[in-house]
Amino acid sequence: MKVNGGLYRTIWLADDGQAVEIIDQTRLPHEFVTARLSSVDDAARAIVTMQTRGAPLIGITAAYGMALAMAQDPSDQNLEASYAKLIDTRPTAINLRWALDQMRHAIAPLETKVRRRAAFDRAGAMADQDIDRCRRIGANGLTLIEAAAAQKKDGPVNVLTHCNAGWLATVDWGTATAPIYMAFDKGIDIHVWVDETRPRNQGAALTAWELGHHGVPHTVIADNVGGHLMQHGLVDLCITGSDRTTARGDVCNKIGTYLKALAAHDNNVPFYVALPGPTIDWTLDDGVSEIPIEQRDGVEVREISGRTADGRIETISLVAPGSPVANYAFDVTPARLVTGLITERGICPASADGLRRLYPQQAKT
Amino acid sequence: MKVNGGLYRTIWLADDGQAVEIIDQTRLPHEFVTARLSSVDDAARAIVTMQTRGAPLIGITAAYGMALAMAQDPSDQNLEASYAKLIDTRPTAINLRWALDQMRHAIAPLETKVRRRAAFDRAGAMADQDIDRCRRIGANGLTLIEAAAAQKKDGPVNVLTHCNAGWLATVDWGTATAPIYMAFDKGIDIHVWVDETRPRNQGAALTAWELGHHGVPHTVIADNVGGHLMQHGLVDLCITGSDRTTARGDVCNKIGTYLKALAAHDNNVPFYVALPGPTIDWTLDDGVSEIPIEQRDGVEVREISGRTADGRIETISLVAPGSPVANYAFDVTPARLVTGLITERGICPASADGLRRLYPQQAKT
Repeated sequence: MKVNGGLYRTIWLADDGQAVEIIDQTRLPHEFVTARLSSVDDAARAIVTMQTRGAPLIGITAAYGMALAMAQDPSDQNLEASYAKLIDTRPTAINLRWALDQMRHAIAPLETKVRRRAAFDRAGAMADQDIDRCRRIGANGLTLIEAAAAQKKDGPVNVLTHCNAGWLATVDWGTATAPIYMAFDKGIDIHVWVDETRPRNQGAALTAWELGHHGVPHTVIADNVGGHLMQHGLVDLCITGSDRTTARGDVCNKIGTYLKALAAHDNNVPFYVALPGPTIDWTLDDGVSEIPIEQRDGVEVREISGRTADGRIETISLVAPGSPVANYAFDVTPARLVTGLITERGICPASADGLRRLYPQQAKT
Repeated sequence: MKVNGGLYRTIWLADDGQAVEIIDQTRLPHEFVTARLSSVDDAARAIVTMQTRGAPLIGITAAYGMALAMAQDPSDQNLEASYAKLIDTRPTAINLRWALDQMRHAIAPLETKVRRRAAFDRAGAMADQDIDRCRRIGANGLTLIEAAAAQKKDGPVNVLTHCNAGWLATVDWGTATAPIYMAFDKGIDIHVWVDETRPRNQGAALTAWELGHHGVPHTVIADNVGGHLMQHGLVDLCITGSDRTTARGDVCNKIGTYLKALAAHDNNVPFYVALPGPTIDWTLDDGVSEIPIEQRDGVEVREISGRTADGRIETISLVAPGSPVANYAFDVTPARLVTGLITERGICPASADGLRRLYPQQAKT
């Protein structure tokens, strides 16, 4: 999508074909910087430090990490070691395991001398497929925004989103944002409420940044505000992403998503989740009890970085000195609170039946 | 309550009797600084800039503001002008109007020469009454914590609170925190989940600070986390404060309170609101449509201040450059989501009947 008027993806093969380049998302919104990943260790570090993040992009970064590993050493031993290294980078997004399984399945049968080339080709194809899936999610979700626009007497369609399920969370287009970009590009009057999404502020830092560069009208709000807006008719629909969705439609997503789904339910605001097939974990049903929830370093709650008036990037402490903090990164929204799932194959109810109809081969029978 | 081992109130008459002193809450948690208010303008500015905040303390600060006004000029004209100046400082907390009405009612019939003395006496009495009400709220709420402790097999009673309804929001003891301090002082095993409460972070900055100084075990969490904790049985009860409660029990409180009440309701966690009688607005029923919600400067969302590792206080920008922000300060939790109201007169259902039984004279018949 657009950055300063130019077109970017979040990850791409370097011109020399020896490395992968990414947008370093830890530097946004204050600095637009790209980084070069030359090894599987670089790729693993990019995921751990969240230079790349978002469930789909974590998967693609890991796929490229496997390609970089094969360029370094195409042996079976390194294939397994690199798989193990990459799968341990983040616990919640299921796309990581999906992408690594795809890569291992494609590479393992090959002779070592062709693995490098095949791995890069495969990772590149997976990146293209990710874009294609997001584009289809966009086209499917667009119908919801068009329907909302048709019902509005005046004013924009107000969409609330949480965290960043934007193009920065994928290779391009995004999941939750794909319908928004398509509606905006089509000239539909749309406005996005952007939850700032503490503690990492990926809404205020990433979603606002990417919507702003594309020109989509939006307003950043504290995470506490969405319920009030819904009580007062200021939200027409919610669209979030997902880090893992179970076979019955329970949605794991950035911490706080559950609270917005409760507010939407209480105010009859449709609550949709946009996700590609690889985000579905067909082995799980009960999201609340079965999905592992990452607990991250408390420093993310205790401190925050930003730009001073004179342009320096500073890190400051926010919490009373000596007070303990806890940092849960995700929560689970039960399927009963989700109006529908927007996938690349269509929109379905958040239920085992709904998902089975769209993905008959993957679903357990 | 305790600060560095010494005992403080949030507001007190200066030793020379010519002014009022306060804890400057805009400097917490990083600096403990007191400020001197010598005029009605000083008092109004302290409320507007939130050097003093919290519904009960706003009321008492305004009462002392009227006393300072009478010390400057005890005329009827200044009485009315000072009332008008102070009532315009904040729109949501009803305690402000209550305190100003009490002061005007007490002062207006008096000859001008005795107004100064009478006004200071009256404000001082109102401060003492505020402490007494909070102490009674504490004793009443303590029974809930004791009951929760009796039911726990092991581990502490986990209480979740939002924003600061602590002693810093009153003259002493606090509203939501009064039962917590009393339980802790009694030796009950208690732990408090402290919502950081964006955008002004009054949980992380004030509630954590005051609990820490008193020694109460607590953990600061992002506002997004409470729902996840409740889903996993990690919250035994919620207690918040209120800025205005209607005659039927709808509770206006810091933005985000409604989201926690929804999560509590969804997980069968008791959700209590602690408030003194002057926080009840007997003229209103439907809180969502009738209570004016303050919209504050977006700079509170866009920027935040804190302490750098080398000890400087810095203000940094958090939001993508150019992105608009909105800053709603309060929301309304419908009575149906509130398990009970903890008042100085006892605990009652959040309903017109419940409140009428405790306050038969104030309630409309």
